Amino acid sequence: MTITNKDKLIIFDTTLRDGEQSPGVTLTVNEKIEIAKQLSRLGVDILEAGFPVASQGDFDAVQRIANEVGPLMVGREAIGKPITIAGLARAVPADIQRCYDAIANAPLKRIHTFLATSDIHLEHKLKITRDECVKRAVAAVTFARTLVTDVEFSPEDAGRSDQDFLCTVLSAVIEAGATTLNIPDTVGYNMPEEYGSMIKYLITNTKGSDKVIWSAHCHNDLGLATANTLSGICNGIRQVEVTINGIGERAGNTAMEEVVMAVHTHPDFFPVYHTINTTLFFRISQLVSSLSGMVVQPNKAIVGANAFLHESGIHQDGVLKNKQTYEIISPETVGANTANLVLGKHSGRAAFRSRLQELGFGELTEEEFQVAFNSFKTLADSKKRVTEQDLIALLSDQVSSSAGENTTYTIKSLQVVSGTSFATATVQLQNTQTGDVLIDAAIGKSGPIEAVFLAIQRLVGKKIRLLKFDITAVGQGVDALGQVSVKIAEGSASGASSDNEDSITETENKNAGLNEATYHGHGADSDIIQAATKAYLNAINRLIANESKRILGERKVDV
Amino acid sequence: MTITNKDKLIIFDTTLRDGEQSPGVTLTVNEKIEIAKQLSRLGVDILEAGFPVASQGDFDAVQRIANEVGPLMVGREAIGKPITIAGLARAVPADIQRCYDAIANAPLKRIHTFLATSDIHLEHKLKITRDECVKRAVAAVTFARTLVTDVEFSPEDAGRSDQDFLCTVLSAVIEAGATTLNIPDTVGYNMPEEYGSMIKYLITNTKGSDKVIWSAHCHNDLGLATANTLSGICNGIRQVEVTINGIGERAGNTAMEEVVMAVHTHPDFFPVYHTINTTLFFRISQLVSSLSGMVVQPNKAIVGANAFLHESGIHQDGVLKNKQTYEIISPETVGANTANLVLGKHSGRAAFRSRLQELGFGELTEEEFQVAFNSFKTLADSKKRVTEQDLIALLSDQVSSSAGENTTYTIKSLQVVSGTSFATATVQLQNTQTGDVLIDAAIGKSGPIEAVFLAIQRLVGKKIRLLKFDITAVGQGVDALGQVSVKIAEGSASGASSDNEDSITETENKNAGLNEATYHGHGADSDIIQAATKAYLNAINRLIANESKRILGERKVDV
Repeated sequence: MTITNKDKLIIFDTTLRDGEQSPGVTLTVNEKIEIAKQLSRLGVDILEAGFPVASQGDFDAVQRIANEVGPLMVGREAIGKPITIAGLARAVPADIQRCYDAIANAPLKRIHTFLATSDIHLEHKLKITRDECVKRAVAAVTFARTLVTDVEFSPEDAGRSDQDFLCTVLSAVIEAGATTLNIPDTVGYNMPEEYGSMIKYLITNTKGSDKVIWSAHCHNDLGLATANTLSGICNGIRQVEVTINGIGERAGNTAMEEVVMAVHTHPDFFPVYHTINTTLFFRISQLVSSLSGMVVQPNKAIVGANAFLHESGIHQDGVLKNKQTYEIISPETVGANTANLVLGKHSGRAAFRSRLQELGFGELTEEEFQVAFNSFKTLADSKKRVTEQDLIALLSDQVSSSAGENTTYTIKSLQVVSGTSFATATVQLQNTQTGDVLIDAAIGKSGPIEAVFLAIQRLVGKKIRLLKFDITAVGQGVDALGQVSVKIAEGSASGASSDNEDSITETENKNAGLNEATYHGHGADSDIIQAATKAYLNAINRLIANESKRILGERKVDV
Repeated sequence: MTITNKDKLIIFDTTLRDGEQSPGVTLTVNEKIEIAKQLSRLGVDILEAGFPVASQGDFDAVQRIANEVGPLMVGREAIGKPITIAGLARAVPADIQRCYDAIANAPLKRIHTFLATSDIHLEHKLKITRDECVKRAVAAVTFARTLVTDVEFSPEDAGRSDQDFLCTVLSAVIEAGATTLNIPDTVGYNMPEEYGSMIKYLITNTKGSDKVIWSAHCHNDLGLATANTLSGICNGIRQVEVTINGIGERAGNTAMEEVVMAVHTHPDFFPVYHTINTTLFFRISQLVSSLSGMVVQPNKAIVGANAFLHESGIHQDGVLKNKQTYEIISPETVGANTANLVLGKHSGRAAFRSRLQELGFGELTEEEFQVAFNSFKTLADSKKRVTEQDLIALLSDQVSSSAGENTTYTIKSLQVVSGTSFATATVQLQNTQTGDVLIDAAIGKSGPIEAVFLAIQRLVGKKIRLLKFDITAVGQGVDALGQVSVKIAEGSASGASSDNEDSITETENKNAGLNEATYHGHGADSDIIQAATKAYLNAINRLIANESKRILGERKVDV
């Protein structure tokens, strides 16, 4: 890369914070750490690991990421420093202190504090005046600077805020010591031209604007997050807040892969360069999709399954004659060759270990490696070619159900009979704590998966509501790995539990409005019924683990 | 809607042409007609129905759409005229004549002819000079105007063409009688500013530019199709070429719902108004997704399952206090309330019929209605609430397997035994042509679905390769409808058939490069194994139907 007279584009990834706010997505600590490691290898500059005050679970996750991923240098040799760990905090001292406590051990750390500045938010949500808003913002930044040197401030709903008032707030927080100012288009309403003009206006009219980094944070409600972010870059933005696959609330956040590849393919158009290892995009996209259960549509730009496939004869002919006629990015640039044969049933431990290293799963313990190798062997037995996609799915499955979390029940055996009438399932579970082996059967009117779920409910002696059930096929062919993700809650349909005494605030808890714990489970198998069974039991084990914690007097944990 | 001093934005839908070029998507004629009817109700101005010269199947589909959908006025009362049926044609007389023959019976019709104008395409693909390019374009438009009054011309790869040469070509085709000029960014490379500037430059420097409608056709390779199209509108574009869900080759085309809703939510920003019935967006999005097998990711703007869901406590609180804090579009505006209860097991024929009418499936024959009602009753028996989403999935299923296509085999019964070891399936089929009932069993190493597919292969006596296998769950809960779509070809893995004597040209056939027929099948059922069985048999019936046609001496048909 030849770099002259250009600024570096700083990549601030918020997959684990804003991305994890996608409806139905709940990542466990192990899952978050795996994603964080991959983001570090990818070359992300700043990783927003969570919102520590939201729950004990969020705090623990941010702390473990700060401790375990904060110091890593693997894949970052060229960048020369580890990833910065950021935590989110409202503009109140308790949030900021809690955020600092979570990130304290990271070699590089940032506190990201925010406060709404639009009149509609001040009036209806915060019920404060503009003056109080400025005071609160300054106080928050001042306090954060007593803890760390790297402080980011975001005026929430900047897109609908009065621009001159925004300049007042921003000038004040720069003076208070903020080092990065982030301008969110919280509701995804701006047109690219409008967003770019707003950035230009703010940079021109904010006192001390040349002392800070300006950052863009766009939402995709009208499908314009990438365009708005790029328009920002043309007008002075040097940090972009993005997520892998563009996941996030509603229609999501800006997709990292789209912004980076736009800059990558237009070196003369943008005043910035990037230091992301683009060849890892496809893999990390699949990992995030597996663990979050958020499907990537085939026509998704850059990382969709079809992104590099040419169907029509005219295009195929063009590509054969000269690649440039229809290709602006080669699939290799983003690592989109994961359907390649990687391993077969005769592949040994050495080959398997070397593939894992390539995929960034090189740091498994010997025990974890053995579990992964056994799963691989079982899979290789039932399908001829084990692809990179399959391995990522298998390993995601292992991360989701891995040690360090309590596994109360494991499957001993499963038998299903189904057909054109009712389905019957017989399930045998082992309780790993007591050693008991339980067996029972149930019928399902809607097919074998319902039968399995009902049999498991009988065995664990709980009423479970299924809130979400997603199936996707990884790879092609009948032996494609089926991936199932489920979300459950305890209780029967009408009886939502209302014990919210553990909530940290009345309204700011992640599940406010519902006030009940939900549990996510994930399973992968070439047999779709077994994948569903694994996912369901995975979620139930999490529910049981959380119950024991609560009995032991811990705070409510968002699992 | 108050309309003053604004031009109407003309919506040109190409879901059935460029959208159907998505890898792995092949729609049957019945499926295309169903989508076309819904597009007409939606208020689309021009419907590109296909590329008639590509195959006999394409020709037949365009002709039936011209005949059956061309005259419809349902839902178009406010627009005052039926939908214009367009067909695509290369800039050669045979294509243009064939296109005219297909659309001839539509009350309003358009020929859309195209020719590449970038040097890279002229040199490497067409191997002609710039002078020859102008001559060929003028000749094509002149000939098309002898057949119809409405002629659109597209300079392919305009984004990388020399702009002055483009003006020369465009001035010449205006003089030859073109009424719409469409400027494609074929490879999705342009930045919004660049695309807008190009449009402005072309309109300023093309002779007679005020006599024609200027049209945008953008691709989404960098995630910027919507932004480029909108930038075009700000610079003089008055027709947009779009698809539902943004489906299309590689990363797809511009999504209609995104462009229309950007205009809808920014009445003061854009110099245009639209006449689309936005409340139908969600339904038609689901219909296209079901029939094409192209999944819509949950974080897709406007039509994604999460597009209107708020997860974080802060946002939920904001929404409860004042909807406007986080909502720029109400779910009702785009019809995103399909999870509502619509029908239960006690609902009768009248209620069912009235729901079908609301969903735009009101024109079923009495026989088709009876089949649909029976499927509904079966479903209602296994789940409490039958939602709008379920009905769309059921009806899509019926469209896919409906009468008018030969159904050789039907399922008599199915029995599956599976579990922690091998799966076994016993399948009983009836051959509707001979009346024979066949039964056989097979085992599947990868689970029950493989066992079913292998048993069916034995029964029909064919080697089938499975090229694609997708599962999605419609709705939530364990009784969600499973939708399976498969793509198959005849032969064992290595033996791709090479008889391409029926290809219309050496390189332009849709399956050029593969030269083999592929068949798509679709099935929906709350039992995932039954859904897979239906999909597989649906595809096999199409394969068999096509074989009989070929034996009867017909041309190769893209099914």
